[in-house]
Amino acid sequence: MGSHLAFELDRQNIAVTHIYTRNQTNVKSLATEINAELVEKIADLPDDQLVIVCVPDSAIAAVIDHIPENCPVAYTSGSTELNSFSTKKRLGVFYPLQTFTKGVPLNIFEVPFFIEANDDEFGRSLFDLAWLLSRKVHYASSQERKHLHLAAVWVNNFTNHMSFIANEFLNSKDLDFELLKPLLSETVKKLQTESPKEAQTGPARRGDDSTISAHLKELSGHHEELYRLITDSIKKTYSND
Amino acid sequence: MGSHLAFELDRQNIAVTHIYTRNQTNVKSLATEINAELVEKIADLPDDQLVIVCVPDSAIAAVIDHIPENCPVAYTSGSTELNSFSTKKRLGVFYPLQTFTKGVPLNIFEVPFFIEANDDEFGRSLFDLAWLLSRKVHYASSQERKHLHLAAVWVNNFTNHMSFIANEFLNSKDLDFELLKPLLSETVKKLQTESPKEAQTGPARRGDDSTISAHLKELSGHHEELYRLITDSIKKTYSND
Repeated sequence: MGSHLAFELDRQNIAVTHIYTRNQTNVKSLATEINAELVEKIADLPDDQLVIVCVPDSAIAAVIDHIPENCPVAYTSGSTELNSFSTKKRLGVFYPLQTFTKGVPLNIFEVPFFIEANDDEFGRSLFDLAWLLSRKVHYASSQERKHLHLAAVWVNNFTNHMSFIANEFLNSKDLDFELLKPLLSETVKKLQTESPKEAQTGPARRGDDSTISAHLKELSGHHEELYRLITDSIKKTYSND
Repeated sequence: MGSHLAFELDRQNIAVTHIYTRNQTNVKSLATEINAELVEKIADLPDDQLVIVCVPDSAIAAVIDHIPENCPVAYTSGSTELNSFSTKKRLGVFYPLQTFTKGVPLNIFEVPFFIEANDDEFGRSLFDLAWLLSRKVHYASSQERKHLHLAAVWVNNFTNHMSFIANEFLNSKDLDFELLKPLLSETVKKLQTESPKEAQTGPARRGDDSTISAHLKELSGHHEELYRLITDSIKKTYSND
């Protein structure tokens, strides 16, 4: 995510002057491209300049501790509460709700950003910064961000796992996951215009128990419990219709 | 699906001469557009012409029984075995692996079609017909079709349900599912180039138990068991890495 943000900020003529990272080899070409200086230690970052912290949640506190005292700091985590850290005068959140793939460009203009800060003026400046990148910038409390992050787990991580299971199953039958990609794309395209409740189809929605039984038999223990639980959950969704 | 197929066949200058449906009002404008005659009874379909049966699995047998005896017949189901019906001399399967939305056009050229028939020559003619619509036509046995259909349930129905749960959760917190749509699109776009195993991110993949606990608490019983089971399944996937 750090590389994506640095690249996009640079594209908007926001100078990213310094980068700190534990593994410099990963960002050397980026640093050259955007003309940023790689620093050896966090403490070497220039004073009084905004620092955006893109690290795993568990590392945020330790990283912030080493940042020069007068730097305003924003971190990019969805699930970390702002009041977890009280050491900074200007501390904020700059959270893009998106999955970033190394080396794959994306349309950041459509990515929702969620802003929070312990200082109103600093919050506004983070909002303005995000606005240079995207037209979907919102203020959100730590609680709202947590809710969005939890929903994102269903939409991203769990959706991805459904494809993992399908892929694994097809491979075990010498069939190619490639064959399902058009269906996967269309499934999601449909959700751009229909609600998930309207868009649902298939044996669970229809209550087609003979197909469901055949599927459970076919799975023969492999992710069978998961198939059963999701199927029951879908059935329950439509049981009062 | 029937409307989509009729429309696409007509676009390829394959005359769809007759349509039977239980509810004629739904297809009247289509019939006019493609210049097809609506018949009152299945038995009124013209003899010796190919009939494509687009009905729920449970209705296929009954519909086939009423089709004039000399008509070659193809049905469009993924999970129905060809040898479930032995009454026809020329019986086949014409299965497009896709989700069809009423009134929403799709790029049928990319849709995989799976062909099977109880007669080789008839199978070839169904293959050729599908080839007019799509460049992804395959012969597949009833068993292979069943496997594809089961995988499609994960990729389509279950993926859709993940979005349903996210949507429901966000609504309960006065947040808008709209905010997650860019993430959903990118999740699937990523799977066009990365395997689902590589593409996975998030707390379950990282083994981030404190975030997982916080999420379970936040769900407070609502789809909690499902969250737990999918999370465990993801964890297991990476436990030997």
